[in-house]
Order: sequence, then C-alpha cells, then structure tokens
Amino acid sequence: MAAARHSTLDIMLSATADCNAIFKGLQSIFQEQEMTETIHNWGELGYLATYVNKNGSFANLRIYPHGLVLVDVQSYNDMKTGEETEQLLNKVEERTKELFNKDIKRVKRLPAIVRGDAIDRYWPTADGRLVEYDIDEVVYDEDSAYQNIKILHSKQFGNILILSGDVNLAESDLAYTQAIMGSGKEDYTDKDVLILGGGDGGILYEIVKLKPKMVTMVEIDQMVIDGCRKYMRKTCGDVLDNLNGDCYQVLIEDCIPVLKRYAKEERMFDYVINDLTAVPISTSPEEDSTWEFLRMILDLSMKVLKPDGKYFTQGNCVNLTEALNLYEEQLGRLYCPVEFSKEVVCVPSYMELWVFYTVWKKRTDA
Amino acid sequence: MAAARHSTLDIMLSATADCNAIFKGLQSIFQEQEMTETIHNWGELGYLATYVNKNGSFANLRIYPHGLVLVDVQSYNDMKTGEETEQLLNKVEERTKELFNKDIKRVKRLPAIVRGDAIDRYWPTADGRLVEYDIDEVVYDEDSAYQNIKILHSKQFGNILILSGDVNLAESDLAYTQAIMGSGKEDYTDKDVLILGGGDGGILYEIVKLKPKMVTMVEIDQMVIDGCRKYMRKTCGDVLDNLNGDCYQVLIEDCIPVLKRYAKEERMFDYVINDLTAVPISTSPEEDSTWEFLRMILDLSMKVLKPDGKYFTQGNCVNLTEALNLYEEQLGRLYCPVEFSKEVVCVPSYMELWVFYTVWKKRTDA
Repeated sequence: MAAARHSTLDIMLSATADCNAIFKGLQSIFQEQEMTETIHNWGELGYLATYVNKNGSFANLRIYPHGLVLVDVQSYNDMKTGEETEQLLNKVEERTKELFNKDIKRVKRLPAIVRGDAIDRYWPTADGRLVEYDIDEVVYDEDSAYQNIKILHSKQFGNILILSGDVNLAESDLAYTQAIMGSGKEDYTDKDVLILGGGDGGILYEIVKLKPKMVTMVEIDQMVIDGCRKYMRKTCGDVLDNLNGDCYQVLIEDCIPVLKRYAKEERMFDYVINDLTAVPISTSPEEDSTWEFLRMILDLSMKVLKPDGKYFTQGNCVNLTEALNLYEEQLGRLYCPVEFSKEVVCVPSYMELWVFYTVWKKRTDA
Repeated sequence: MAAARHSTLDIMLSATADCNAIFKGLQSIFQEQEMTETIHNWGELGYLATYVNKNGSFANLRIYPHGLVLVDVQSYNDMKTGEETEQLLNKVEERTKELFNKDIKRVKRLPAIVRGDAIDRYWPTADGRLVEYDIDEVVYDEDSAYQNIKILHSKQFGNILILSGDVNLAESDLAYTQAIMGSGKEDYTDKDVLILGGGDGGILYEIVKLKPKMVTMVEIDQMVIDGCRKYMRKTCGDVLDNLNGDCYQVLIEDCIPVLKRYAKEERMFDYVINDLTAVPISTSPEEDSTWEFLRMILDLSMKVLKPDGKYFTQGNCVNLTEALNLYEEQLGRLYCPVEFSKEVVCVPSYMELWVFYTVWKKRTDA
C-alpha cells in the first residue's frame, strides 16, 4: 500500500513583515510547478494558498499576519516526488532568504512524516510527545483476547514489544529489567519470587540465573509469551521454551485469583515483582477504576509478601507527576502501613526517563 | 508570537474502499462547521477537499484511492481552537467507524505539532528521526563567532546544550561523560590529561575529582564556557568558575595550533579526550574535507599520546554505520598504527544509542 509523505517548512519572520509581500514573493515558485492555485484571503488573519499538482500531490502555503509562514507538501511517498518536494521547499527557503533576509528569525524543516505506511514508526511517549522510531520491520502483529500484540524491529533497539500501542520493552532494555529487580542490590539466591505479568520473560530469565529457590510467574496472555519466546530471545533467552523449569513455573492465568488463592493459603514470597501493563488487564470485573484496581493488586501483593520482603514495580514517566502522586497516595491506603523508595532510570527504547518503585512493609518494632 | 497547531488523523481502510463514498460520508462533518469548501477531484488519484474557517483555521481532507484518508487541521495554538480541532477529528474518526468499520485497518492520531512557537521542541536525531522534547524554557540563546549556542530546559533532562542545532549534552547525561572517560575502567590519579573541546565542563569536572596530575582543556568558544558555567552546573559543578585550578587549566584556543605546539615540544599525555563537536569548528583553513580534518586531529593527538596512553572520543549514532565505517577507515591511515575498541552507550537526552571509541597505539613489540 502506497504511503503518503508530509513535508513541512516553517519560517518565522519578524512581526512587521508584510503578508501580501511575502505571498507575492513566494507565489511564483508554486505557479512554476503548474499547480492549480486556490487562494483564500482572510484579511487580517492572513492568507492560505492551496496548490494542487496533477500527480496527486498538493501544497499549502499559510501566511499568518504576525510573520509566520508555514508550508506543507503532501505527496505519494516515492523517491521521485520526495525529491521534487525537497526541491520545492529549497526554493521557498532560498527565495525567503533573498527577499526577507533581515526579517528571518528562524527556519525549521522537520523530517518528513510518513503517513499510512505498512510500518508505523510513530509511537508517542507516555507524556504525549511525538517520537519517531527506526522501525524497519513488522515482526509480529496479532490480536489476542486481551490486547493487540506487536513486535517491531528497530535497527538500534532490536525487537520491541508494543502492547495495545504502548512500548513495553525492547531487546536493548536490560536497564528496565535490572531496575524492576532492585538495581543489582538484592540477593535472589534461594528466594521465593512472584512475578505478576512479565510475559516478555526478561525478569524471569535474569532471576533464574541468580539461583532462586522458586520463581512463579503469572501472565494472563499466552500469546504474549508465544510471541516473545520466538522474537524477543535477547530478552528472554530460552526461559519461555518451557513453562516449567528446575526453579520456576509460569502460570497462564489472571493474577488476581492467583493472588487471592495464595493469600488464603498463606503462601509467602521474599519478592513480588509487579510487571503488569500500565493499565492492567484483568478478567476480574469487581473494581471500577484503575486506581482501585491497582490498590487491590498492591493489597493482595502485600498479603503474600514476607514481613522483610520487597515489592518492586515500574511507575510511570518521570514527567507525569500527577499520576505518580496518585500512585503514592494509593500506597498510603493499603491494609498495612508501607514505606517506599523510587528511582529514575533511563530505559533506552522509551525515549523518556522512567520511575521505578520499591515498596516494603513498615517495621512495627521501630 | 502566536504559534500554529497542526493536527493529523490518518485512517487506513482496505484497498477496496470506495473513495467517493468516503468523501460523501465525511463531507457533512466539515460543512457543519460553516467552513468554506474547495474540492479537487483527481479522478483515479482521489480527492482533496480544503475547508477554510472564519477564525483562521483550515482543514485538508485527502482521500487516496487505495483507501488512505488523511485529515490535517491547522489553527492558531490556543486552548479553544485546540479543543475544536480535537472535536472535529473525533467526529471524523467516529463517522468513519460507523460507516466503514469492517474496512478499517488502522486509525492513527499523532500528538499535534506546534509550529512557529517561541520554544522549539523538535530536535531531530543524528539519524534523521523526528523527536519532540519536553522543552519548557529557552534559558540561553546566543550566536558566538563560531556557532549558535542554545541552552534549553527540559522537564526530565534538565538543561540541554544545543550547538548549531545539534543536541550536545544535557544535565541528565553523566552516561556520556563516563563513556568518553573510558567507562570507569581507567585510573586518572596523577595522570596528564588533554581534553579537546569539552566546553560544557562535564569531563573536566569528573576528572578533577579523580586527582589527576594535570588536566589541560582546549576549548575554542569562550561563550560556550560562559553559558555552561551559568546554566549547566549539574554537569560542570564549579570547575568553570576559574579557568585555572590546582590541577587543571582551560585554554580558550583552537586546539589545532595547540596540538601542533605540544607535538613540537614533545609534550606527552596519558589520556587525550576528543570532545569536539560532530563537525569540528576550527580557524585552521588547511584541510578541506571533514574527514581529512578529523584525521589531522587524530594524527596530532597520537603524536602527543604516550606509548601506553589512550585516546577517547565519541563517534556517532549507532545507526549511521557508513559514517562509523569511514571513521574507522581513518584510523587505519594515521602516521602510526593504532588499535581501537568501541562501545554502544545510551545517553538519556539523545534518544538514540551512541558509539564511543577508545584508540591506542599498537604495541610494536608484539
């Protein structure tokens, strides 16, 4: 399927620039392309000229009265029209410099946006910024009963797991796994560990190397495991090849009933690692809001955590202070008093700094 | 100065979707906005409809014949028109889902692009990808004799030094400084160190902590030092407050003549750290191409490097394999045989993985 390429050129002139002079100065460049011209003159709100080319491409020349000139060119994404667009924008830039040199405050040309391509390279950050990835291949793209599962190949980050549009983990992101395991400060030898979620297998793979007594991982979505076993091997190694190993077991279940069962059985863990997706998936219909759901998971996790155990989880983008504050508020509302610490970590494929939490039960003897 | 906001909505339908039916289905949404309509029908290349609003905003509805529908809305960047745009795009998305649900392959809405704002948030990566930063303040913006110097504040990365449009270093980027110092594997105690460039003071600040014998830093641009001393203190601490310290000196000079002088004097260093900008600035007119210039710096650096000394430098984005290969070729053409190793490092504010080189003189006794 042919994609479209959207190119932009932004020119900021001093506020005293004459709209009409700018328009007259640039108009001929478009007219030379034998494009059909339509002009809209708002008067005090400036000009819009639209130019339509026979080959299916078109351009907008929008002149704002305070000296802002925005050019957009949209065309089929092929080499030839791509070059023609670059040449057209070059001409506009050159002409503007010739005519209004002393008035130019900034010229900005962003990398062209490719729209409607089979490979989608744009995966905004959690704090809503536009970022383009160096994706060159769709490795896996399936809908499970719970979510859309994509594994895309990035030249620099390796394969990236994207769940319902959220970048979860790339093969480059050992920093994530290390952070959610306590940043190398914990001794997992002979310990009982519970992982909630973690379907990419990264945490399981790293902990199993450390000779734990037993690791139980509870992942709801078999298809995430299947995709990652095949395409995220730098992350999970061979640990997902079998759902049972010498010192681990993987349960394909919703973690809520499992936590409830363990709490009832008074089964306790040294470490609980919550690696669920940002907005957790569950088959439990009991709780309405995300925050109540998160608190329920926290409460249940504390119930199965030994008194000196630790609970690790990822929080959010460091910029989302409101969400982080709300999370910390939940920590003050659990059935037992807890304390927590947090750490800011750079996860390579995230393109934003991420907060990780360590939570533990407050010592009552203090 | 009022900026413009450019919003997009991309809808991919199956290739058999009927252009005319799509156009007729969506047209009324725009007509309801009392916008002036101009329609261009290419026939087999599809439709373009342009809608102009009295308030200065306008929309493009481009329907490509293979089922790609691209909507663009450009308006003044204020709260009210921003909300109106979101509502308009919501309606288009909803209507499309009502009418063509079974044919929809993907709906994509990118974060709106703010164009012509006083604060420029878009600083593409070295490998040419579009990335938006969380910039909220222009801290410093001056032209020196050599380059444009910007220091912009990012909510998550702290202040970022941008030289002639290239992101150089943010206060979050200790990882860069550590990498170009040899990643913690070197002992700088009582060593003679030469830093080429490094005007942000990061390397100098970190090495001075390690009790070297003497560090000489040669930076061409006093204004970079002045800006960083004031606004990059998390990077440089107090080390730039004086150009001379107990164990360091900062020379405000072009490094080429300094290197030549040292080579002539046979002054030798344990470490040479090249932290010059990607395309080096020099007042030396001798060399034409960037590669020859880089080789000259490498040659001169080798001349002032002790036989067991090490040369560190930053390379490039890991994706720019051609540039990296060319650099490595230069290493094979120096006056003396050298060996090298490289390391890939995640520098938080770069949003791309970066290659760092260690170069040393080949032992002739082997």
